[in-house]
Amino acid sequence: MTPPDRIYTAALVIIGDEILSGRTQDANLAYLAKWLNVQGIRLREARVVPDIEAEIVEAVNACRARHDYVFTTGGIGPTHDDITIDAIAKAFGVPVIVHPEAEAMLRAYYGDALTDARLRMARVPEGAELVPNALSAAPGIRIKNVYILAGVPGVARAMLHALDGRLEGGRPVLSRTIGAKVGESTVADLLAATEAAHPGVQVGSYPFWRGGEPNANFVIRSTDPQAMNLAAEAILKGLAEMGLDPVDGEI
Amino acid sequence: MTPPDRIYTAALVIIGDEILSGRTQDANLAYLAKWLNVQGIRLREARVVPDIEAEIVEAVNACRARHDYVFTTGGIGPTHDDITIDAIAKAFGVPVIVHPEAEAMLRAYYGDALTDARLRMARVPEGAELVPNALSAAPGIRIKNVYILAGVPGVARAMLHALDGRLEGGRPVLSRTIGAKVGESTVADLLAATEAAHPGVQVGSYPFWRGGEPNANFVIRSTDPQAMNLAAEAILKGLAEMGLDPVDGEI
Repeated sequence: MTPPDRIYTAALVIIGDEILSGRTQDANLAYLAKWLNVQGIRLREARVVPDIEAEIVEAVNACRARHDYVFTTGGIGPTHDDITIDAIAKAFGVPVIVHPEAEAMLRAYYGDALTDARLRMARVPEGAELVPNALSAAPGIRIKNVYILAGVPGVARAMLHALDGRLEGGRPVLSRTIGAKVGESTVADLLAATEAAHPGVQVGSYPFWRGGEPNANFVIRSTDPQAMNLAAEAILKGLAEMGLDPVDGEI
Repeated sequence: MTPPDRIYTAALVIIGDEILSGRTQDANLAYLAKWLNVQGIRLREARVVPDIEAEIVEAVNACRARHDYVFTTGGIGPTHDDITIDAIAKAFGVPVIVHPEAEAMLRAYYGDALTDARLRMARVPEGAELVPNALSAAPGIRIKNVYILAGVPGVARAMLHALDGRLEGGRPVLSRTIGAKVGESTVADLLAATEAAHPGVQVGSYPFWRGGEPNANFVIRSTDPQAMNLAAEAILKGLAEMGLDPVDGEI
């Protein structure tokens, strides 16, 4: 059985003034990207928006029209600056309701201490279902192709793992890395020629300096393992022919 | 003299498959955000796009119409996957030319080793000027309100520092942080009431767990130091009245 060739794409909308002010370093994008790739889905774009309803609405609507899946992070807590649920309900043109199952989960967790503020975490856009997580009483939320996750990385990851293997995807992108002690400009022609000669393969070049010397990693990506390996061998051979001593792996 | 009340905004377009694949963690957004704030400019949105020309064009055009400044990072090196210059030239509807000054800088640096690949780094959209940097021979580029920076964080920072104090901005956003050993849901009403009572002040709540106990930092932001401090004092007082022992600073 051949895996499907359809490419599944996703977008991430990161919601929060704290990211745009530089106070907090996002730690969800890279994790989500790798998790998605295992599911056979490519993260194709990401947007960071402030805690402003209209901007969340616009970003979510732009992304959900263009991609198979949209993930949001942030803004689902109990405080006044947590406006993600209201914004996404508005994006879908539906009211916000209290989800009975989410309320029951919070009631079981907080008991008599379930204040109005905490009950905010049971609010969902009408028609949504829950994405429970093993780490906290407040669930993630799915409405249509939009998955609403927490901003706190541990909780976001727990919500993703509740979705393991549950999203329809295609073939994951495979990658192989070749490193060399060389400035990327020296080998630019080899990289371009290799990519051109191997359809379905992308070659990325990621230069860095170490000990005052130029180095680079070359990442060969494809959904086809044979094509990827042929391109990788061509780069290894080409680098060796230039008198370099490439490493089959990241340096 | 009263500083201008006009709010200056900026967007960041992060260009690169390596960010969207999760291979590389972006390290420019938070730095740019803080640097911009010193210049009196607010980072209002960010987008991460792949190495696909049409998507770079669309993101840059959307952002430059909406903001005073746009910064891009990534894709200005010498290899085939560096397509930022071509994409931004297309966004502006101008051809790509070799900038004589950039060529001279590269020629001085590389001498006889100035290959065609390296000369790619002297290509600019017609009408652009250079943003030199102290760290490398390849300059950043400005065309109208778009600043094209390197993706490598050290080089991007060197380019920003060449722009220190040169961009027109308004009043920087000031911030003050109050920490407390409390779950944010317990104090949600206090935070909402304080923000509502202090126009021009935003109150953010950033919860975390430490040693199995809930903690939170509350960040009070305003361009008006007096308004910020009044709101901060109200939160300190409110937390103390709830029997908490707040810290005037981040915990």
